[in-house]
Amino acid sequence: MGSGTQGGHTDAVYDVIVLGAGPAGENVADRVRAAGLSCAIVESELVGGECSFWACMPSKALLRPAQALVDARRVSGAAQAVAASVDAAATLSRRNTFVEGWDDTGQADWVAGIGAELVRGHGRLDGPRRVTVARDGAAPLRLTARHAVVVATGSRAVVPKLPGVDAAGPWTSREATSAKRVPGRLAVVGGGVVGVEMATAWQALGAHVTLLVRGSGLLPQYEPFVGELVAASLADAGVDVRLGASAASVDRPAPEAPVTVTLDDGGAVVADEVLFATGRAPRTDDLGMDTVGLRPGTWLDVDESCRVAGVDDGWLYAVGDVNHRALLTHQAKYQARIAGSAIATRAAGGTADTAPWGAHAATADSAAVPQVVFTDPEVGAVGLSSRQAEEAGLRIRVVDYDLGAVAGASLYADGYRGRARMVVDEDRGLVVGVTFVGPGIGELVYSATVVVAGQVPIDRLWHAVPAYPTISEVWLRLLEAYRG
Amino acid sequence: MGSGTQGGHTDAVYDVIVLGAGPAGENVADRVRAAGLSCAIVESELVGGECSFWACMPSKALLRPAQALVDARRVSGAAQAVAASVDAAATLSRRNTFVEGWDDTGQADWVAGIGAELVRGHGRLDGPRRVTVARDGAAPLRLTARHAVVVATGSRAVVPKLPGVDAAGPWTSREATSAKRVPGRLAVVGGGVVGVEMATAWQALGAHVTLLVRGSGLLPQYEPFVGELVAASLADAGVDVRLGASAASVDRPAPEAPVTVTLDDGGAVVADEVLFATGRAPRTDDLGMDTVGLRPGTWLDVDESCRVAGVDDGWLYAVGDVNHRALLTHQAKYQARIAGSAIATRAAGGTADTAPWGAHAATADSAAVPQVVFTDPEVGAVGLSSRQAEEAGLRIRVVDYDLGAVAGASLYADGYRGRARMVVDEDRGLVVGVTFVGPGIGELVYSATVVVAGQVPIDRLWHAVPAYPTISEVWLRLLEAYRG
Repeated sequence: MGSGTQGGHTDAVYDVIVLGAGPAGENVADRVRAAGLSCAIVESELVGGECSFWACMPSKALLRPAQALVDARRVSGAAQAVAASVDAAATLSRRNTFVEGWDDTGQADWVAGIGAELVRGHGRLDGPRRVTVARDGAAPLRLTARHAVVVATGSRAVVPKLPGVDAAGPWTSREATSAKRVPGRLAVVGGGVVGVEMATAWQALGAHVTLLVRGSGLLPQYEPFVGELVAASLADAGVDVRLGASAASVDRPAPEAPVTVTLDDGGAVVADEVLFATGRAPRTDDLGMDTVGLRPGTWLDVDESCRVAGVDDGWLYAVGDVNHRALLTHQAKYQARIAGSAIATRAAGGTADTAPWGAHAATADSAAVPQVVFTDPEVGAVGLSSRQAEEAGLRIRVVDYDLGAVAGASLYADGYRGRARMVVDEDRGLVVGVTFVGPGIGELVYSATVVVAGQVPIDRLWHAVPAYPTISEVWLRLLEAYRG
Repeated sequence: MGSGTQGGHTDAVYDVIVLGAGPAGENVADRVRAAGLSCAIVESELVGGECSFWACMPSKALLRPAQALVDARRVSGAAQAVAASVDAAATLSRRNTFVEGWDDTGQADWVAGIGAELVRGHGRLDGPRRVTVARDGAAPLRLTARHAVVVATGSRAVVPKLPGVDAAGPWTSREATSAKRVPGRLAVVGGGVVGVEMATAWQALGAHVTLLVRGSGLLPQYEPFVGELVAASLADAGVDVRLGASAASVDRPAPEAPVTVTLDDGGAVVADEVLFATGRAPRTDDLGMDTVGLRPGTWLDVDESCRVAGVDDGWLYAVGDVNHRALLTHQAKYQARIAGSAIATRAAGGTADTAPWGAHAATADSAAVPQVVFTDPEVGAVGLSSRQAEEAGLRIRVVDYDLGAVAGASLYADGYRGRARMVVDEDRGLVVGVTFVGPGIGELVYSATVVVAGQVPIDRLWHAVPAYPTISEVWLRLLEAYRG
């Protein structure tokens, strides 16, 4: 971790400089430090990033109590003991615990613990291998990287530029996960993961939620039955789900006044808060990208080792949301492990193994990305949907099974409703995609991830026996249905 | 399904005769029928067997409401809404639904639906390929099998021959899963799966349970930390767990009087009912085994295709508990699929593929048997324990991880306590055993089963990314710990 001046403009030299201390940045720092490289990690907000403070953790903390009660209410014998709905104050308090009161001391200590240098401030590229950090109340710090600079600055919520939207003070995912009290009425714009999870959470916490979805269904990236089951369940929970509803303008006449969302069909929804869950943009607009020949504000194209395309000498990497491969914390961490290891290998003069599934190729980003959506019912999927597989030109067979017909599922919840789909590449005899939707399926997704990423042949899966009576037995049913 | 007389003693001839219509028998019938073979299935009790009516299904039905409430009580925000303990009457009623009031009409219909002939009565072998069925109020039926007879008669509970035990009317697993009311005090003898599951269930339903365990810990077949965590949790729930306590005699002076279990150290436990969960014996004592050269009352040795050893011409198979390979419903069904397919292949003049992991080899029975114990915390394991791996002479590395340190686990339950262990065969770079203990891990076991049975290399597992934040992320932690 040498410091001093090299040339006239360097205050410190590190083997690796990481921009952004979210999960992606933290993990790449961890990997390069484990390989003995020095590392600085630059962060302008909270160490731990979006996931720790304004996304995964607080959103799941808001959702879990509701899910636990829903699960208990669905089992006769337990249901009789549930006398009330979710305790909102206790849930918000528990959420605060998980985000440590939005204090990053613990995470900063973790960075120190791995021996990386935390630099607080706004980092910008300043030509090849150079980073300038603007700091509050201190002179800019000029850093140089011997081997690599890694962009791990993530993404931000995009709010559409509708008339009146800025003045209305809309929620994004940040406000939706960090709100201190429950709004009486909440309008949610967007039927993707953030929209449906936050509609689920706030409805359970006592808000009257209206979910406005431009398209014809929820969670459109998944198999069609997923959105149908989630929409039906949200409606059962009291959410006003409006499909084909596009917000045209927003009006909040005074700061404490209700907000009116006018739809393009002339209808209107009045609420106390409005959440826009309408997509993400890369945080590359103010990173000095132009100093290295890249265009600010764009997603960064990377190769399989997460090295940014079009940069001479291959010193620039991008991991996490910012490379647009898969906007999920766990894939960001995966890319960070892969890229960190590639950086260390190359720094030592070695050749990275970037063959598919090699140590330095983030192959899972294209073949086996898992996701769990913590709605009720839960949604879990990995790999290709049937539509994606068809679009990829694969000769596939699609096998469906009613999860409610599995003994373990019927034990889990009375009146269990759910469905599973397995997409098989017939030419290779491999499962390339799996989707589950139903209560209690969240931990089942990893089995599908191993099947898809591990490319376990169908014939061998016949020997992977699900314990009886678990929900996992759906695997046997899918395999039996496949064999006919 | 030809009938008539062949020789002087045959009333009907089938390709395959199955003795026992539990899950093993049903599944072998299903497989041979799917291959176009005729099949009779002989059952003296309820079609559906032990699992459906007196084991898996009713036991899990008794356990699930308690688990749902325990889960809710462990999440602040949900806990505040739980006002009572399990509703015992509702739970018993729900259990009755799952066992269909101990009526097997639905299962008999299923047998008819696959086109197998259900023969109600007590079947006994009567020389090679011949079965005589003793029937109530009807003449014995004499059946002949063209290709195979399959013994799938299962096992029964063993009650130790202690003084006074018979007169005391002890519970076995049957009575423990089918009881119509909650005893005030229940003594459970045995610290295996049945003992700890039934102690968990009946304590939650309101009984005061004393668990008497001869050995030094619960669930001794698992990694030692499993029994420790389950014992601590049972004690927290109010169960009086007594290790090193061996029942010496039992006394119930009158039918409705309390029962006293005297221990060999002179101590005594007074209870309203006593459950002996002290092992299983094969149901082969009254099957005419001697007519084909086998010894009645013994477990049946089988090869990898579940063909009984020492029988000329290989026409006798045994699947399920009775072959003693793995006394679990799901392994019984697995063996039934394997054996049914082997029978069909051989009947068609083909050669069975009995190489390891072949279509006609029940390889998983030795390499990848999963089990989930529905206690609190849940226990799940597959493959070899560290001790078994060492005894098998493998050069192993054992990796442990504190499940409570996984973000998904901390979200699942406040104060989460659990542990995971991965046993790696260092020579092959393969995971050969995995153990989880903790709340909510039941569905996680299938991922371990795929890893072990699929022999997915450690290097490839690095690309199987767990979704964040799920409990499954323990896999990443185990792999990181393994890589050091």
